[in-house]
Amino acid sequence: LDPAPEDPIFELYMHDLLGGSSPTARPITGLLGNIYNGQVPFAKQIGFTPPENGIAIPNANGALPTVNGINGVPLGTGLSGTAYSGQNLNGIQTQLGPDGLSLGFGTITVIDDILTSGPDLGSQPLGKAQGVYVASSADGSTQMMAFTAMLEGGEYNDNLNFYGIYRIGSAMSHLSVTGGTGRFKNACGFAEVRPLIPSGQHEVDGAESLLRIIVHLKY
Amino acid sequence: LDPAPEDPIFELYMHDLLGGSSPTARPITGLLGNIYNGQVPFAKQIGFTPPENGIAIPNANGALPTVNGINGVPLGTGLSGTAYSGQNLNGIQTQLGPDGLSLGFGTITVIDDILTSGPDLGSQPLGKAQGVYVASSADGSTQMMAFTAMLEGGEYNDNLNFYGIYRIGSAMSHLSVTGGTGRFKNACGFAEVRPLIPSGQHEVDGAESLLRIIVHLKY
Repeated sequence: LDPAPEDPIFELYMHDLLGGSSPTARPITGLLGNIYNGQVPFAKQIGFTPPENGIAIPNANGALPTVNGINGVPLGTGLSGTAYSGQNLNGIQTQLGPDGLSLGFGTITVIDDILTSGPDLGSQPLGKAQGVYVASSADGSTQMMAFTAMLEGGEYNDNLNFYGIYRIGSAMSHLSVTGGTGRFKNACGFAEVRPLIPSGQHEVDGAESLLRIIVHLKY
Repeated sequence: LDPAPEDPIFELYMHDLLGGSSPTARPITGLLGNIYNGQVPFAKQIGFTPPENGIAIPNANGALPTVNGINGVPLGTGLSGTAYSGQNLNGIQTQLGPDGLSLGFGTITVIDDILTSGPDLGSQPLGKAQGVYVASSADGSTQMMAFTAMLEGGEYNDNLNFYGIYRIGSAMSHLSVTGGTGRFKNACGFAEVRPLIPSGQHEVDGAESLLRIIVHLKY
């Protein structure tokens, strides 16, 4: 191991909003039900006559009420421990949709999350985190994350790429820095990712997952 | 910054063909309509009795005519600023499908694009670019790209991996080189990506997006 641990170069706070009126993350597809008899959800149209027994994709807006009643989080998605098929994890109560199904292993969620300098959503914006996360374990405890932190402000395009497995509900996850551009040209390194409870000062009608990302870089 | 800027190691021209008779990119899934009430399209089976009015995934071959009439570009996908829901961006006219929807935020497109040494599709082929791009912003202005440039010609397998955010409609985007094999073993670096107007000498019945990729490598 390096004798002198690299001191953290900088911190990013990532806000991932699911459901509600202006989500920053969208579950795109996934297998409903448990891993072994899941079907790909077929979205129920709004206003058209839906096919007899289309399986509604639980998304927070306008689809069948297969979302968590309280904060509209699509079941079994997100970074905050929404469990699959009805388990109740750290306070976020999830219930099955009327069809008894929730999104499970393999859900692909596309993100355009907000990066700020401090834990509060209203603190100084740094840029956007764009990419995907994929539910990568049968018990719903991990998400494979691949995204680019696009940091505005620099004269040219300062981006940092992250890749790795986020462990929902655990105090610390590690992602790798797989590259960078502009100021972060040829960067490599890793990031310590810690979930925080959103301060809630900033009124949000979706479910916010807040991640503190401490970036250690080596060029 | 390094004192001596790395001189561009080499150039790749990437041809991304959507729609038409032999597309090199295929939109696999995505949310129809705008980000807030999108549904996942349901691919129409061929040969089975399809559900009465499943939402056809807008792809150019054999699906409902939900593609751009002129060049068969699936709506709201691609690297050339095909806007969502009917806007008309830099000349590519997109109209809504009969169901009034076009693919939006979160569209996942799989690519097997053609790499050549010069801007013309007919110039000397270098290999293939295989991977995915994902529409990673609500306004459709960026695509997260993750692909491998597989360069034939070398005695063994020369590959280069790229990851980052492509900004549709902007003159320059930056992707990172996240690794390589064969000749590019242990490579890192970045690439400047510029959109070009295809020369059109080579008859193409789909919509071509042409990217000039200038690769700067460090080993």
